[in-house]
Amino acid sequence: MTIRTVVWGENVHEQTSQIVADIYPRGMHAAIADTLQGDDISATTATLQEPEHGLPEDRLAQTDVLIWWGHAAHGDVADEVVERVATHVHAGMGLILLHSAHFAKIFKRLMGTPCNLTWREAGERERLWVTTRNHPIAAGLPDHFELEQEEMYGEPFGVPEPLETVFISWFQGGEVFRSGLTYKRGAGNVFYFRPGHETYPTYHDPNVQTVLRNAVRWAHNPAPRVIGVNEAPNVPADQALEPLEARGPRLHRDGEEGFR
Amino acid sequence: MTIRTVVWGENVHEQTSQIVADIYPRGMHAAIADTLQGDDISATTATLQEPEHGLPEDRLAQTDVLIWWGHAAHGDVADEVVERVATHVHAGMGLILLHSAHFAKIFKRLMGTPCNLTWREAGERERLWVTTRNHPIAAGLPDHFELEQEEMYGEPFGVPEPLETVFISWFQGGEVFRSGLTYKRGAGNVFYFRPGHETYPTYHDPNVQTVLRNAVRWAHNPAPRVIGVNEAPNVPADQALEPLEARGPRLHRDGEEGFR
Amino acid sequence: MTIRTVVWGENVHEQTSQIVADIYPRGMHAAIADTLQGDDISATTATLQEPEHGLPEDRLAQTDVLIWWGHAAHGDVADEVVERVATHVHAGMGLILLHSAHFAKIFKRLMGTPCNLTWREAGERERLWVTTRNHPIAAGLPDHFELEQEEMYGEPFGVPEPLETVFISWFQGGEVFRSGLTYKRGAGNVFYFRPGHETYPTYHDPNVQTVLRNAVRWAHNPAPRVIGVNEAPNVPADQALEPLEARGPRLHRDGEEGFR
Amino acid sequence: MTIRTVVWGENVHEQTSQIVADIYPRGMHAAIADTLQGDDISATTATLQEPEHGLPEDRLAQTDVLIWWGHAAHGDVADEVVERVATHVHAGMGLILLHSAHFAKIFKRLMGTPCNLTWREAGERERLWVTTRNHPIAAGLPDHFELEQEEMYGEPFGVPEPLETVFISWFQGGEVFRSGLTYKRGAGNVFYFRPGHETYPTYHDPNVQTVLRNAVRWAHNPAPRVIGVNEAPNVPADQALEPLEARGPRLHRDGEEGFR
Repeated sequence: MTIRTVVWGENVHEQTSQIVADIYPRGMHAAIADTLQGDDISATTATLQEPEHGLPEDRLAQTDVLIWWGHAAHGDVADEVVERVATHVHAGMGLILLHSAHFAKIFKRLMGTPCNLTWREAGERERLWVTTRNHPIAAGLPDHFELEQEEMYGEPFGVPEPLETVFISWFQGGEVFRSGLTYKRGAGNVFYFRPGHETYPTYHDPNVQTVLRNAVRWAHNPAPRVIGVNEAPNVPADQALEPLEARGPRLHRDGEEGFR
Repeated sequence: MTIRTVVWGENVHEQTSQIVADIYPRGMHAAIADTLQGDDISATTATLQEPEHGLPEDRLAQTDVLIWWGHAAHGDVADEVVERVATHVHAGMGLILLHSAHFAKIFKRLMGTPCNLTWREAGERERLWVTTRNHPIAAGLPDHFELEQEEMYGEPFGVPEPLETVFISWFQGGEVFRSGLTYKRGAGNVFYFRPGHETYPTYHDPNVQTVLRNAVRWAHNPAPRVIGVNEAPNVPADQALEPLEARGPRLHRDGEEGFR
Repeated sequence: MTIRTVVWGENVHEQTSQIVADIYPRGMHAAIADTLQGDDISATTATLQEPEHGLPEDRLAQTDVLIWWGHAAHGDVADEVVERVATHVHAGMGLILLHSAHFAKIFKRLMGTPCNLTWREAGERERLWVTTRNHPIAAGLPDHFELEQEEMYGEPFGVPEPLETVFISWFQGGEVFRSGLTYKRGAGNVFYFRPGHETYPTYHDPNVQTVLRNAVRWAHNPAPRVIGVNEAPNVPADQALEPLEARGPRLHRDGEEGFR
Repeated sequence: MTIRTVVWGENVHEQTSQIVADIYPRGMHAAIADTLQGDDISATTATLQEPEHGLPEDRLAQTDVLIWWGHAAHGDVADEVVERVATHVHAGMGLILLHSAHFAKIFKRLMGTPCNLTWREAGERERLWVTTRNHPIAAGLPDHFELEQEEMYGEPFGVPEPLETVFISWFQGGEVFRSGLTYKRGAGNVFYFRPGHETYPTYHDPNVQTVLRNAVRWAHNPAPRVIGVNEAPNVPADQALEPLEARGPRLHRDGEEGFR
């Protein structure tokens, strides 16, 4: 069974910046998808410019893990698509947010926080340290690895306390950052991974590629998508699991929907 | 120093249901505020029907802890007010969500999940068990206490894994529910507390009142409100904390704002 | 690749109580191992009475997941074996603690807390509710399932806040209990699962058996066992990752071991 | 009401190293206690060399928060005293572990893990970043502060996932470390704080002193010490909260103690 993965790319700077186009000639999304392809992962791509940003309902229903890279055009992503993705995450689809996707609508939607940070584009050295040796996302990695040129992101990072901190980055200019964080939202596994500024060849780095493949496997929830993920069913007194006689005043009639 | 608390009430069923009006003649919000008043807490109220639902910017700026009870009219709460409250929570305002506020826009906004559950309005017995003896929200409580008549809420509760589980409820009809959950969102402490269906005298119960007072004290963050809670400042290379020479290609000019 | 699982059983009441012997003629450990055997799991057993309790170093080195059931003879387990198991957990071996193993030396060793609870042996009904729908340990289970006769365990349960709460139990007599809790200790995944009093046929229940199989798969860490799991290596200044000149006073000479 | 704080110091290097004696003429424990004294905190000291290491039962019973600094003589601390301290933490005493106390018996006892790390004594620059702006332990601090000379501690740090990560350190030599971590163990709040190598004047630093004072206030649990913190009481069927008739086979007679 392969993990059906969709790599979503904003695909803006690849079209407007020669620097980015030179590093990722077919787009960042295509480069990431190429990296993932393998015995247990099948990866396709989707971009902002496609109808429904390439993420119609029937495609998401066939997606096990969605990877999201966006930067310049967060505001152009339709709210309807964001909500659709959120619902699929709640129902069990894995979601991996890369780098500047910290400000993607879908990440802020799922975190409930500003998701802000400090930043510097100076091509400085980043060193990622593994803080949770047993984590499947760190499988096969050394205790640390370096990216010779990266954008700096610095703490405090405006996210909720994670389930687990998997990586912490050291930056040459003096900052640190929680670079790999796991969350669960409903039945969906969510992973944020920091590296990946578009002017550097980060997604060609073998260690980064290992993280991406590991993250897809970790985020994959093989259970069937949860049905009725927003429902709040009424359990009438005569269907209670224990003998129960209804008593006291009531607002709702039998079988009535609750308020929302 | 008193903790400036605002109790927000939807104030709908108090006006439309004689049952509710009889239990809470001046409204649930007023009953809760009366309970909180004391040496270290000063409590006022706000309702849906007031301009800006009683929560204009200058009032939130003077609020240490906001308590929220809503049920029938979640959809009538203006998105602008929801966003304003979210920003204050991120900046340090405490927020306590009561009972049917699990479906309040502000709770779903901060959790990023469906926040759904199962329910039954049968006036059954609820018994709350303390699961974290050291938690300040449980101070002064026995290991368990009962509410003879309450609405049932059942698991699975569609929320993120909490920071701490403080209470778990047993229901006569056979369900369980995580009834007291703590979260942090930005600099704000968030507490969800389950009991409080409007057709029962729950907020007149001494143990429930103890929880409310404890929760206000716990949620209060005495630090000054965080300024610029959504900002993502650029730290130029020449202002880096360590000696740093910028190198490599760049998308941004010095001093430029980042993308959102 | 099969997950090499060892089911450790105290094997006392099976020898001294006809009731237990009738339910588990070959011992609880054998019954659990039989349940686990399958395409991806190979299960063997070990008991208190064997030399080194059946858990010598070379066997643990070949064990992916260890399951532990003990009750009457916690005090008879050698401290040396407990420490050996702890080291293997830290290095990546999965550990599943069943029922009365809440008081096993190895569980208290890994939790750092009293691990106490309230209890009642009255053959009452227990109903387990799934609280984390996405958790692999709950795969294939309905939202709740019942055990018609079980011992009661009640909150507060003296354990650290878990990574995730997977199950919560409802008891006929009025208590609740966090019945499925996940932890990580070093590189090892740890799961506590409540049901399994020896006088009831709990491990013959299909839902319980599903939990056990799921838990083995979840606890399995396929990464190689961590080497030197207690080491605290000195990184001399001349081997630092960044250029560094040692300065200031020192307690330690180059290459010296740290204090313990 | 003042928070009764005891600062425990190993008091070895102060006696054997002129460097340390020059920085802390009356001992590190006395310097830390001096820092804490104030309107809401009263601080005394205890050392390894005193009978029962200065921590007899009646003194711990009068201690709200215990601070622990040890390094060269972890092995000389009596197991009986360690267990006594652990019991008081479980019952509600706060505990703050400083620097090399990561290898103190009491920290390993409460964490259940190796608590190891990498290290280098080179007097390098450490910069601590606040990662949880709302945390009371960070009250009054800037987003980062520096210690010009400190020992390096590096990840991976062999501790359980914390409740909250409050500080992360950047080191000149290229490492990072989770320098401020909160835990709860039973009713006791536990805080680990990294800085404080004895050959540098770390505890004379104003920001470090602010952290220590904040940490004492955070760790203080004003609730009365929990009685019978290791008890596991039997709740007989005829005293159950809900009507319950005992059924099925039993191992225990009424009123019997459980196994341990």
